Amino acid sequence: MSDLILREDNGHVARLILNSPGNYNALSAEMIATLYTTLAMIGTEEEVRVIILAANGKAFCAGHDLRQMQAARANPDGGRAGYTALFDACAQLMQLISTLPQPVIAEVAGVATAAGCQLVASCDLALASKSAKFGVNGVDLGLFCSTPAVALSRAVPRKAAFEMLATGRFLDAEEAAALGLINRAVAANRLKAETRALAARIAEKLPAAIAMGKRGFYEQLAHETADAYEAAGDTMCANMMLSDTAEGIQAFLEKRKPGWAAE
Amino acid sequence: MSDLILREDNGHVARLILNSPGNYNALSAEMIATLYTTLAMIGTEEEVRVIILAANGKAFCAGHDLRQMQAARANPDGGRAGYTALFDACAQLMQLISTLPQPVIAEVAGVATAAGCQLVASCDLALASKSAKFGVNGVDLGLFCSTPAVALSRAVPRKAAFEMLATGRFLDAEEAAALGLINRAVAANRLKAETRALAARIAEKLPAAIAMGKRGFYEQLAHETADAYEAAGDTMCANMMLSDTAEGIQAFLEKRKPGWAAE
Amino acid sequence: MSDLILREDNGHVARLILNSPGNYNALSAEMIATLYTTLAMIGTEEEVRVIILAANGKAFCAGHDLRQMQAARANPDGGRAGYTALFDACAQLMQLISTLPQPVIAEVAGVATAAGCQLVASCDLALASKSAKFGVNGVDLGLFCSTPAVALSRAVPRKAAFEMLATGRFLDAEEAAALGLINRAVAANRLKAETRALAARIAEKLPAAIAMGKRGFYEQLAHETADAYEAAGDTMCANMMLSDTAEGIQAFLEKRKPGWAAE
Repeated sequence: MSDLILREDNGHVARLILNSPGNYNALSAEMIATLYTTLAMIGTEEEVRVIILAANGKAFCAGHDLRQMQAARANPDGGRAGYTALFDACAQLMQLISTLPQPVIAEVAGVATAAGCQLVASCDLALASKSAKFGVNGVDLGLFCSTPAVALSRAVPRKAAFEMLATGRFLDAEEAAALGLINRAVAANRLKAETRALAARIAEKLPAAIAMGKRGFYEQLAHETADAYEAAGDTMCANMMLSDTAEGIQAFLEKRKPGWAAE
Repeated sequence: MSDLILREDNGHVARLILNSPGNYNALSAEMIATLYTTLAMIGTEEEVRVIILAANGKAFCAGHDLRQMQAARANPDGGRAGYTALFDACAQLMQLISTLPQPVIAEVAGVATAAGCQLVASCDLALASKSAKFGVNGVDLGLFCSTPAVALSRAVPRKAAFEMLATGRFLDAEEAAALGLINRAVAANRLKAETRALAARIAEKLPAAIAMGKRGFYEQLAHETADAYEAAGDTMCANMMLSDTAEGIQAFLEKRKPGWAAE
Repeated sequence: MSDLILREDNGHVARLILNSPGNYNALSAEMIATLYTTLAMIGTEEEVRVIILAANGKAFCAGHDLRQMQAARANPDGGRAGYTALFDACAQLMQLISTLPQPVIAEVAGVATAAGCQLVASCDLALASKSAKFGVNGVDLGLFCSTPAVALSRAVPRKAAFEMLATGRFLDAEEAAALGLINRAVAANRLKAETRALAARIAEKLPAAIAMGKRGFYEQLAHETADAYEAAGDTMCANMMLSDTAEGIQAFLEKRKPGWAAE
């Protein structure tokens, strides 16, 4: 793994740290590729139950790498093929997060802008420092944040999303929490510990149930209610047939701790 | 009707009371069947205009009956067919609520967990005591609440729903109101009266307009905007052609009370 | 243009004023047609970058013109064809707003009811005086607001929408803001200035980026996530290929103001 992303494992929790503070952890082609590869790899690691996505430096992530994007204009096609590839790779990264078996928690200590805000919106969960800020302000440069809008408009109410996109206005962390972009804002000096505690709480659960449940959660969201219930019913059934779930329910009925094979 | 569910009628309002406090009003196969049959029957009773769903005992509803579910594991198929039937019956019950001509109000005085929380999310409206709690905590036993997630994720923002599902964390009633899971939290000693007042306000309306409107509301939600408007336009037209609606509008223009045949 | 709607242009901002205070700016057939034609025309005016929709008199808009609707009952078909045409024209108007290249901001100083509330919900953005009120109270006359429900239920959480529709209850402006129906409530004597400031902020952006972004925003909302990303990626690419966007990004990298051809 390149040093663009650092990794700290602690028990069943893998904490990834975007480590390119010099460009505010921009989602350059290399950063997107590295983050994609790293997440996809962790997705196969059974011992990892939760992923935290944090960042070094003052910014969480400032979105795409504008210098790199401008350089592509010198190509014979004016950059078009490169932009298509870049936005596609970025969209694949955002969607990968939802397909990983482990929940992914954004730990946002600084500013998250444009595709960086999209990254927060795309994580399953997000905690932020009260001093964090969130914006999709590409419009200030003449580039409406149309791909970040996909994730943003599925996380917050429509008019709030449109205002952020059309004005470039930043949300503070309390506003982001009230709108649903993050789960909650915490004191800056508590962010790492609170994120770790949230991860630990999920890591105690039965990993197969979390993996099935997460996959089912996003699957049913894509359907109308009747089809959603059909899909969700299949997931519940499969979950019930796990021997660890049988033990988990039995232990609850007997008021004892479950003896899960997965422990 | 079995005594699993009690019924009190008051004017045009039918108040159903889940009456199995010994198992926290669990949605056993019998409770699901009884509630389904009772609601379907009331759906045909023209004199009933609003349904309240309340509960006896400390809990509103604790979700599925875990003892019953564990017992099914002794079947030759390990319980699979029974689970399929159970989750299907439960999903049919939840969807029945949206198809009834009468609005259904959950009156939540205690805890609502797992499929009990799904039941609250599935009602058209919900009031709760400030001491009520809401959780989809099956994950604590190794069973991710995938079917409750269908109703929950259509009522509250995505990240809030995912956190509840993946951590088992409970919401208090104020949080549930802020997120949209319930309409509002009221003082415990005001819950029954406030719910009755809300029901009475709806019971004063023209029943045919409420029935058409409710059906149209859920129908249009399942469509993209253009198709939603087409469906909703048909509903509005049909509503306009009711003679009681003609009278209702005329009465408004003449600043008098409508003389509805339905009164 | 008839005097049903007044127009004040200020720089790149067109402010339309519903000007039928005598009937609370009702969306009569004439008002709908005039507003549609006016908005469609402004949609072709390149110098206009933002549209504000305001109103004269105590009400913002009281919904359909009930006297006109009642009069249609004298037709041989009891009014049905006229109602179909009216609701269709109204739905076309609401959807036109989303397809205009310019953002449309509702400036709501008074009450917005029924289709008037739908109009607020249909605008891209909305500011309101703290004394404004919002309701879909047709149900009080026997006419459930089924077409307003389309816009309302896409702006606010489901249970809140259903309560407004089934009870006729009005929201005050703070509630409307908390639910997402408007962007925020401001002091009555600040409403016009705040709306103008919001419009000015958007008018400073690159118009082509706003137009592409707005079209893409509503397009992607109608798709599942994967398809949404495909559409949004195309939009981002097209936006990147604009020479003004190249200049906008370059200016940002060089810490100078962009020299946009569009200025």
